[in-house]
Amino acid sequence: MSGLRFFHDPASVAVIGASSDPEKIGGRPIRYLQECGFAGAIYPVNPQRSEIQGLVAYPSIDALPVVPEVAIIAVSGANAVAQIVRCAELGVAGCVIMASGFGETGDEQGLAWQAEMLDAAARTGMRIVGPNSQGLANFATGAVLSFSTLFTEQPPEDGAVAVVSQSGALCSVPYGLLREAGIGVRYAHATGNDIDVTAAELAAEVVADPEVKLLLLYLEDIADLDSLAEVARTALDRGVPVVALKGGRSEAGQRAAASHTGALATEEGVVDAFLEKHGIWRARSTRDLVAAAGLYLRPGRPAGEQIAIVSNSGAICVLTADAAAEEGLPVAELTVATKSELTEALPSFASVENPIDVTAALLTDSSLFGRVLPVLGRDGGVHGCVVGIPVAGRGYDVDRFARDVSDFEDSTGVPVVMAVPQSNIARVFREKGLVVFADESEAVRALAQYLRHHTLIARARSRELGRCALDSRLREPRTVLNESESLRLLESIGVPAVEHVLVHDAAEAAEAVEQLGGGPVVIKGCSSEATHKSELGLVRIGVPAGEAEAVVQQMFATLAREGLANEGAIIARMIKGVHEGMLGARFDPVFGPVVVIGAGGIHVEAMPDVQLLLPPFSLDDALAAIGRLRIAAVLGGVRGAPAVDLDAWAAAAVALGDAMLDPAAAIHELDVNPLMLLPRGGEVQPAVRAVDAVVIRSAH
Amino acid sequence: MSGLRFFHDPASVAVIGASSDPEKIGGRPIRYLQECGFAGAIYPVNPQRSEIQGLVAYPSIDALPVVPEVAIIAVSGANAVAQIVRCAELGVAGCVIMASGFGETGDEQGLAWQAEMLDAAARTGMRIVGPNSQGLANFATGAVLSFSTLFTEQPPEDGAVAVVSQSGALCSVPYGLLREAGIGVRYAHATGNDIDVTAAELAAEVVADPEVKLLLLYLEDIADLDSLAEVARTALDRGVPVVALKGGRSEAGQRAAASHTGALATEEGVVDAFLEKHGIWRARSTRDLVAAAGLYLRPGRPAGEQIAIVSNSGAICVLTADAAAEEGLPVAELTVATKSELTEALPSFASVENPIDVTAALLTDSSLFGRVLPVLGRDGGVHGCVVGIPVAGRGYDVDRFARDVSDFEDSTGVPVVMAVPQSNIARVFREKGLVVFADESEAVRALAQYLRHHTLIARARSRELGRCALDSRLREPRTVLNESESLRLLESIGVPAVEHVLVHDAAEAAEAVEQLGGGPVVIKGCSSEATHKSELGLVRIGVPAGEAEAVVQQMFATLAREGLANEGAIIARMIKGVHEGMLGARFDPVFGPVVVIGAGGIHVEAMPDVQLLLPPFSLDDALAAIGRLRIAAVLGGVRGAPAVDLDAWAAAAVALGDAMLDPAAAIHELDVNPLMLLPRGGEVQPAVRAVDAVVIRSAH
Repeated sequence: MSGLRFFHDPASVAVIGASSDPEKIGGRPIRYLQECGFAGAIYPVNPQRSEIQGLVAYPSIDALPVVPEVAIIAVSGANAVAQIVRCAELGVAGCVIMASGFGETGDEQGLAWQAEMLDAAARTGMRIVGPNSQGLANFATGAVLSFSTLFTEQPPEDGAVAVVSQSGALCSVPYGLLREAGIGVRYAHATGNDIDVTAAELAAEVVADPEVKLLLLYLEDIADLDSLAEVARTALDRGVPVVALKGGRSEAGQRAAASHTGALATEEGVVDAFLEKHGIWRARSTRDLVAAAGLYLRPGRPAGEQIAIVSNSGAICVLTADAAAEEGLPVAELTVATKSELTEALPSFASVENPIDVTAALLTDSSLFGRVLPVLGRDGGVHGCVVGIPVAGRGYDVDRFARDVSDFEDSTGVPVVMAVPQSNIARVFREKGLVVFADESEAVRALAQYLRHHTLIARARSRELGRCALDSRLREPRTVLNESESLRLLESIGVPAVEHVLVHDAAEAAEAVEQLGGGPVVIKGCSSEATHKSELGLVRIGVPAGEAEAVVQQMFATLAREGLANEGAIIARMIKGVHEGMLGARFDPVFGPVVVIGAGGIHVEAMPDVQLLLPPFSLDDALAAIGRLRIAAVLGGVRGAPAVDLDAWAAAAVALGDAMLDPAAAIHELDVNPLMLLPRGGEVQPAVRAVDAVVIRSAH
Repeated sequence: MSGLRFFHDPASVAVIGASSDPEKIGGRPIRYLQECGFAGAIYPVNPQRSEIQGLVAYPSIDALPVVPEVAIIAVSGANAVAQIVRCAELGVAGCVIMASGFGETGDEQGLAWQAEMLDAAARTGMRIVGPNSQGLANFATGAVLSFSTLFTEQPPEDGAVAVVSQSGALCSVPYGLLREAGIGVRYAHATGNDIDVTAAELAAEVVADPEVKLLLLYLEDIADLDSLAEVARTALDRGVPVVALKGGRSEAGQRAAASHTGALATEEGVVDAFLEKHGIWRARSTRDLVAAAGLYLRPGRPAGEQIAIVSNSGAICVLTADAAAEEGLPVAELTVATKSELTEALPSFASVENPIDVTAALLTDSSLFGRVLPVLGRDGGVHGCVVGIPVAGRGYDVDRFARDVSDFEDSTGVPVVMAVPQSNIARVFREKGLVVFADESEAVRALAQYLRHHTLIARARSRELGRCALDSRLREPRTVLNESESLRLLESIGVPAVEHVLVHDAAEAAEAVEQLGGGPVVIKGCSSEATHKSELGLVRIGVPAGEAEAVVQQMFATLAREGLANEGAIIARMIKGVHEGMLGARFDPVFGPVVVIGAGGIHVEAMPDVQLLLPPFSLDDALAAIGRLRIAAVLGGVRGAPAVDLDAWAAAAVALGDAMLDPAAAIHELDVNPLMLLPRGGEVQPAVRAVDAVVIRSAH
């Protein structure tokens, strides 16, 4: 640990606004510090009292025998600000500000107070957590600088999980659920308004703790991307899975945007892309945040995503397979050797296909799990296992089942989730350290998260992580390029554009057509001021060579009539893709460059079929994104259509991503639609062509 | 109750294969009958014993003092068959056959034995449940003809829920979960192989019981549609919600089919359409099957689907709104009056928008729920409520919260679901009769099921339910109509087709073009033997009037060259839709007629965007199905395109549905693709035109 060590292991803690009542905000931290074995000095500060909870109390921070390393601010309003300023002046290293009523209210006074705190901190280097913070807790050192009531409800126990949250409730909930499940928690941080120290910054600190094996995050916004990227890098280095929950998915407002890309690359979509790129699993609910914790804490790492399903009920076998399909987990195809071993192990009427129904014979033959599971463990294609026991109880040797499943997990390293609806039976399996859910859908969902997250992690490991520095593009004025300039820019960055000639004189038209190898051609009036070219009659398709000059004259006349700058006429080769794709990019004020890849055509906004990518990304990343599109189903060639060249499309996306990272390219926003997708191995190489494009550039 | 009364309230029960061991299959029913207060006579049959579990035992069924009304068969194999035959001969009304090893094994002996049982039953009118049945249980009369171990694990209590399942495990699981939640269960039936009495037939019987308020079904196949339709009719009449779980969603094999419609109208899709039409909610997992039970058992019915969200955590407010969006539940827009009342009720810094964050002030002001909820109850736009309490415990007046929420529910009838992760806090709310989940996503999912199911029920009430009788179509030979015949058939049933003329002589071409108002026209070679017309060059678009004769000659030459029957040439008016739709139908061997409506074009199979409808259905049903298509987003007119005439499309679908019900129309399978969707209020009326069609007819 480095920059924020003092918050996790302070030599001394002052509690300003200390209370004798161990249930009050100013009282609880004192109680927790004492109960949790904090070894440093505790200084209650309260001008009304000489003793608080058995400790000497001081009238003011100035009266303390030493300058405390950390101060908890449990007083409010102007007094809080005055205390913080004094702490800074005295040389306190860090303050945890529990008081609320500041920036989160949105009122001017609160914001002014926050500015004052920040100012004092900036002058002296003091760091601030909060305000409006429930506080920080490190159960390894006993440094519990928090008033969370949950530490009373569910007594703490040091462990391998770190919880870092911007919300107090969303720190307490995972803490409570983990503790209720008997899982130890080392850190339980709730940061609040994050005016200085951010949740991500603290997360970067705790994920470096060698004892931490799992990090759970709750974020209200994803703002401190540098720290979050550091969290991801450290976590990937150390092999610590990170699960993040971020609310507001449904309210993601579409940006008021000048282009498709703006409307499609929504903030929530970018958050998804950012987290995925960094190997962080995005949970969808508080349940998802903790559901797979028991799996993550197991030793070993899964080797793939294929599962086996074993149950004493055929119906549960079928329902579990349904749940696996829903979560995108493949049910493993067993090897011939495995099936032949299963035939020996199972009753004659049981199925040796996966899912494996050991049948109700389990009641009379308690050895079935012990015989079947090891066989599955030897099948290299089984990376996870769901064991469903819908019915057990008197007459069943549940202890033996638990031993057999647990032995299997220990000896093979294959993770097992159990689906056991009877709570008394579930308890027996839990006591053996197994991960148990009440139903097959929950069990499969947790296993899917665990297995698929490790695939995500493996992919993220191969990436260079971190955000490109936000450059001056955001502040510079913007220029809309005309279509000819846009197509030229695309060519210059490595995105193939349709072959075309820009003419400024109708007399040049015939020569231009010849240069393109003859008609028919496409002719478009070119003006950076024209936004709806088709509607204005500025696009003509299939113009024969002989009519080119006349059409160019018409275009010029139209531009003049509409009062649009005449920037020439584009004469382009006719090109028709097998399918139409789109490619876009924008420079996001928070995330930097974002690339959009998807189905093209006139309905990209009404029926979007897109994926987002954060540069830099690889050809494989781009191909994977294309593979997730709905149109992927037809790109390989169906109904007599040839397969399109996916590599060419992916390469164009990578080129665009690289250009977005280059401040010199100065691309602010870019739309290519359609991007004609041409046959793999066909005449046109590379087999992808931008035929219409708009680029908005930062002027410089 | 009528036809199967004796299974639910028999005067006497014989147990053939009775056991003294109350844990054995032949012993458990005797124990349960005695423990559950069965008032009829119990006759253990076992040639080895004179007394079993305190009752006189008899050596054979023939030795009993009376002919028992019901017999449980707990012996196996050939002996079971012999006993069943004897029961039938003696006049036993019904047998419950627990023995397995019959049809479910798939082996010939098992199937032959089943046939023998059925035969004996048919001769005498005896009814058979099973074989391979866990048995039936009626806890109202104590007629527990079942060996389920769960009745030992979770002692029964009579209540308002009926569980009917084809699987033993999937009867025991919901029974156990309901009992663990303190909910009473009246019926717990597990039927097995259903060779005579089906699960649906028993369900139709129990759903008519005036005390039953909720029916949960587990079905392995949906075969007995007449009984299922009867279940639905009775349930709708009585206001009893029916929730069905059916496994095998993921394995739904695509039928080997001669048409798009065949491939698109998958068995599982038809099951969905059937259940939805009948107002039955389809659960996705065992959890879903029981999760909303507590809500269903409340008095009152919801008035809509809009919800309010209240929590003492802003983060939970946001996450709950996300979950609502995911489940398709609208978050209610509060009225001005409600907001103004909320302003009075809430702390100044709390939000009066829905979701409503009562803030951490709940700790110091325990009256907040009591003040806020009644205000929401007076807002007519709130049909359900989620209350999330992520943090509570010492210092919180949880009893008061529970009272306030419960009073709100009782006085307003607005259903409430709670999201409470701390199990000790959840218990307090449960004890007040509230429906509590551990997290917001589960709570919202259950509420969504409850509210949306009632919308489904309300729609189903307006429908005429039941299946059209399966007619002879399935057995008759089939004829593929050529395109001209297909289009004529469409016209005859009320699906508008493109205007066209069939010519048999090239010399008639010019006159035909004139008849259609002049060229250009579309010309197609017509042959019921041609399946890939385009690939063979049998389709020519944009043929000028002057070339029509030559093109027809070419078509005839092509037909001759390919050895295809020359059934003429179709000369059709050129027509281009704003969008392309599709319409299809097939006659399913189980469900009867199925209509498919969706996006048209060449990718209907690779990127399907379809909905299924079971005739008869209304214009509103068809419009609702169109509204669920992805292309619905563009049909109203985007990017300068006019809105298409959805009513015309829906009317064509209704006409097709009606024709499918008409045995005289004799349509076996039908594909219209594309169905051109034309502008609402445009020149062509009705604004929809089939331009290509294939009809497979039952010859008759």
